Amino acid sequence: MAKELKNFTKRSDNYSQWYNELVIKADLAEQSAVRGCMVIKPYGYAIWEKMQRQLDDMFKATGHQNAYFPLLIPKSFLSREADHVEGFAKECAVVTHYRLKNDPEGNGVVVDPAARLEEELIIRPTSETIIWNTYKNWIHSYRDLPILVNQWANVFRWEMRTRMFLRTAEFLWQEGHTAHATREEAETEARKMLNVYATFAQDYMAVPVLQGVKSANERFAGAIDTFTIEAMMQDGKALQSGTSHFLGQNFAKAFDVTFMNKENKPEYVWATSWGVSTRLMGALIMTHSDDNGLVLPPKLAPIQVVIVPIYKDNDQLQAISQRVEPLLEELRRRGISVRYDDADNRRPGFKFADYEVKGVPVRLAIGARDLENGTVEIMRRDTLEKETVGFSGIEDEIERLLSDIQSNLFKKALSFREKMTYTVDSYEEFKEKIEEGGFILAHWDGTPETEEKIKEETKATIRCIPFDGDTTPGKCMVTGKPSAQRVVFARSY
Amino acid sequence: MAKELKNFTKRSDNYSQWYNELVIKADLAEQSAVRGCMVIKPYGYAIWEKMQRQLDDMFKATGHQNAYFPLLIPKSFLSREADHVEGFAKECAVVTHYRLKNDPEGNGVVVDPAARLEEELIIRPTSETIIWNTYKNWIHSYRDLPILVNQWANVFRWEMRTRMFLRTAEFLWQEGHTAHATREEAETEARKMLNVYATFAQDYMAVPVLQGVKSANERFAGAIDTFTIEAMMQDGKALQSGTSHFLGQNFAKAFDVTFMNKENKPEYVWATSWGVSTRLMGALIMTHSDDNGLVLPPKLAPIQVVIVPIYKDNDQLQAISQRVEPLLEELRRRGISVRYDDADNRRPGFKFADYEVKGVPVRLAIGARDLENGTVEIMRRDTLEKETVGFSGIEDEIERLLSDIQSNLFKKALSFREKMTYTVDSYEEFKEKIEEGGFILAHWDGTPETEEKIKEETKATIRCIPFDGDTTPGKCMVTGKPSAQRVVFARSY
Repeated sequence: MAKELKNFTKRSDNYSQWYNELVIKADLAEQSAVRGCMVIKPYGYAIWEKMQRQLDDMFKATGHQNAYFPLLIPKSFLSREADHVEGFAKECAVVTHYRLKNDPEGNGVVVDPAARLEEELIIRPTSETIIWNTYKNWIHSYRDLPILVNQWANVFRWEMRTRMFLRTAEFLWQEGHTAHATREEAETEARKMLNVYATFAQDYMAVPVLQGVKSANERFAGAIDTFTIEAMMQDGKALQSGTSHFLGQNFAKAFDVTFMNKENKPEYVWATSWGVSTRLMGALIMTHSDDNGLVLPPKLAPIQVVIVPIYKDNDQLQAISQRVEPLLEELRRRGISVRYDDADNRRPGFKFADYEVKGVPVRLAIGARDLENGTVEIMRRDTLEKETVGFSGIEDEIERLLSDIQSNLFKKALSFREKMTYTVDSYEEFKEKIEEGGFILAHWDGTPETEEKIKEETKATIRCIPFDGDTTPGKCMVTGKPSAQRVVFARSY
Repeated sequence: MAKELKNFTKRSDNYSQWYNELVIKADLAEQSAVRGCMVIKPYGYAIWEKMQRQLDDMFKATGHQNAYFPLLIPKSFLSREADHVEGFAKECAVVTHYRLKNDPEGNGVVVDPAARLEEELIIRPTSETIIWNTYKNWIHSYRDLPILVNQWANVFRWEMRTRMFLRTAEFLWQEGHTAHATREEAETEARKMLNVYATFAQDYMAVPVLQGVKSANERFAGAIDTFTIEAMMQDGKALQSGTSHFLGQNFAKAFDVTFMNKENKPEYVWATSWGVSTRLMGALIMTHSDDNGLVLPPKLAPIQVVIVPIYKDNDQLQAISQRVEPLLEELRRRGISVRYDDADNRRPGFKFADYEVKGVPVRLAIGARDLENGTVEIMRRDTLEKETVGFSGIEDEIERLLSDIQSNLFKKALSFREKMTYTVDSYEEFKEKIEEGGFILAHWDGTPETEEKIKEETKATIRCIPFDGDTTPGKCMVTGKPSAQRVVFARSY
C-alpha cells in the first residue's frame, strides 16, 4: 500500500494525469455520481477551511461583513444586464418543477407535471443579479453607502469539461458585492480586494501572482474592468486565481438602484464584485507538489508536524510517548498543529509514505536508539532532506523549519516563474516559445481581433495587462500597429 | 426614526406579527424575490456565524471532520429508501435543463428544450442518499469505520407556508453523517450529538431544551429513531430545535454499503445523521426577545458592549474618546467585542433605540458630566435596568454583567417553561389547557392512531417521549389503554 501510494505518474511524463492522481491519492477530493460535481473529502476540506478562515479574517479587517442571498435566481433577472446574460445563460442549471410524485407505472418517482413553476429558477452561477435586486431596497441615500458585503456560497455552472478543483460544475467560493457613491471609491475597492487576494496567495499559499487588468475578451460578463491575479503552474500554464471586477453602474442601471447624493440628486450606484473559489486548491496543489505527492505551505497545512514513533513493543512505545508528550504540549501551546501517530495497525514505512503524499511539512521519527542518544530524526517535506538532531530544543528547530519551508516554497515558485517568463518581439518566436509553456511578454495592438487570432493559432490568451510591467511602447508582434506596453500571454487552465 | 424602530406590535397583542416585525427591525433578514427564500442580512448572519463557529468547535472536539458533498442529487437516489422518498419527494426543487437560450421572440431568455437532462436532478433536501452512495466507496473493512463527517450546507425544501428562519424553502444548516460497525456505537453517537445540541442550546443560546425521542409519526423519513431537543417559545408553543437520527442499516441497505467485520464476514454499516439549521435563529429570537426588540445572550451577540458618547462639541467628544480608549483596549484584550459609536450623523437617542432593538447586551453612555464625576451610565438589555457607576474598574463590572445576563436569560426561560408545563390526566382538561399554550405531560397509549386523533382535535402533537421524564405507568387519557410513561404534548412551529 505504501508503494502503491507513491506509485505516481511523474510530472514530466504526464502533468495532467499526475494532478488527477494526486488529488485522489492525497485524499483531497473525488468525482461524485453527479456529472461534473466533486466530493471534497475531509483532508481536502480541511485545507479549504484554513483558506476560508484566513480570507474571511482579511475581508473583515478591510471592513466587510458576511451575509447570505438565495441560491435560486428568477430567470428574468439574468436577462436584465445584456452582457451578463450572454456570459451565464449558456451554462446554468434550470429548476422547472417543485415536486416529484410516484411513477404511475411503479418505477420510483417522476416529475409531477402539475408542479411546473410559472417562472423558471436558475441555480446561481454568480449572484450579481439577485444581490442588486436586493440592494435596491437597502440603498436610498449616500448615507446608506458604501455597502461592503461578502457571501460564502456554492455556485453552479454547467461546464462541459470538468477537472477537480480547477473547473467543476458546482464549486464553493466567496463573492464580495459592494456598492459605492462614487466611481473612484468603487475602483479603489476593486483594486484593494485584488490586493488582498495577491497578499493571501503570496503570504499564505506561497504562490507568486501577477496582478493586472484583463483584456475585453477575458472580462467578466457585465464588468467595465476585471482585475486578476495570475499564477504559473509547474507545466508553465497560467491559472487565473482570483478576480475583482469594477462593474461601473451596469447592475445599478439594470436593477434601477439609485441614491440621493449630497446635493439631493438621484444617481446610479457604483459597484464591484470579487471572488475566489475552490479553484485556489488547484493552484495550491499544482504550484508546489512533486512526484512524491502533495507539498503544502505550513500556513495552510491541516497537520503541520507529524511525529511517528518507531517501536518493537509496548514498553518502547510507552517510553517514546513519555518523551514526546511535553513536546506535543509545547508545540500546541505555540499554535502549531501536530499529530502524534502511534496507531499500531500501520507500519512506520506506510505512515511515512502517507504523510509524504499528504504533504505534511515536517515529520519527526523517534525510536529506541533516539531515546538513548537524546536525538530525533527530522524531515522537511519540501526538500525531503532529513537529519538526526538533538531532541532538546527541537521545538525551536521545528518553528524555524516551518517558517523556512513557507518562504522556500514561495522563492522556488517565484524563481520558476522568472525562469519561465520570456520577452518576445516576433510572432514567429512567440509561436515557438509558447509550445514550451511559460509567460510571454509581448506587444499587442489592443484589439480583440488580434487577441482572437493569436488564441486560435496558438491557444494562448492574454492573461493580463500587468499593473507594474514595463510600460515602454512598442509595436504589436502580429500587426505591427502601436502598442502601449507589453502584455502577458500564456496558455491557461 | 428612533420611535419608529421601537413602535412594535406587542407580544401579547399578536405574537406572530411581533416576530415578523422584529426580524425586519433588528435587521436580521428579509424576504427575497424568490418565493420562500430569505436574505440573511449582515447582522443576522453575524449571529449565525457565532453559532456556527461554536458548534463547529464542538463537533471537532467530538472527533468529527468537515467535508462537502454535491448540491444536486440524481432523482433515482431519492427512491432507493422507501420511507425517505415519501418524506422528501413532495417538496423538492427539480432541475430538468442545463441551458437557457435567447427567446426567438426577443423576450429575454427561455429554457433551451434541446438541453434536457436525461435524469432530473434534485436540489438536496438533505444528503443521506448522495452521501451513502459515496460512503459505498469509502468503506470496505471495519478498519475504515467509524466515519465521522459533517457538512455545512444549504438545503432546499419546497415549503408551502414559510416564515423567516422558522421555515424557509432554502435554509442553511449542518448535517452530520456517520457510519459505524455496530448498532450500539451508532446509537451512542446519535445520543451524543443530541447532547452536544442540548449543551449548545443551553450554554450558548440560553435556551432550555427537553431531550427525548420522537414518536413514529414525527420521525425522520428513513430513521429507526429520531432524537430531538424541544424548546418552548414565549407563546407556549414548542420549537423543535435540533434532531439526531439513528438510521439503523436502512441507508446502508438502500445503497448496498457493507464492510468486512473482524470475523471477515460482510455486514451492513450502521448510520446516524444529525442537524441543526438557521431555524435556531428563530428559537433564539423567540425565547428571549421583548416588546422593545431583540434580546441576545452575550455569548452569541456580535456586539456585546456598545459605548455611546454624549457630547455638544468636538472638544467634548475628544475628551470622552480619550477617556474611553483604554477601556476599549482592555475589553478587547479580554475577548469582549465592543463598539464605540461616535458617529455624528445619528443622535444618542436614536443610537440607544437602535442598539436596544438589536439586542446589544450592555450599553454604556458617557457625557461631559460623567467625565467630571468619573462616572458612566451602564444599561443591561435583558432587564433594561440602568445605573450610574464609577468609571474606574468598569471593565470588571462589564464582565460580571455579561456573565450575569447570560445566566439570567437561561433562568428566566427555564422558569417560564416550568410555569407553562402541566401534568394532565383527562382528555377534557387537556383540550382546555392546550388552548393556553405550554407543554402538557400526559399518558398516551403509544399508537399512531391516538396521536393522530389528538392532533386533529387539538392541533397538538407529541413533541417527544422525554429521556428523563417521570416513568410511572398510567392510562392513556384518550383510550384508557396502558401507557408506559407520560409524553410531552404541545402545539408547535
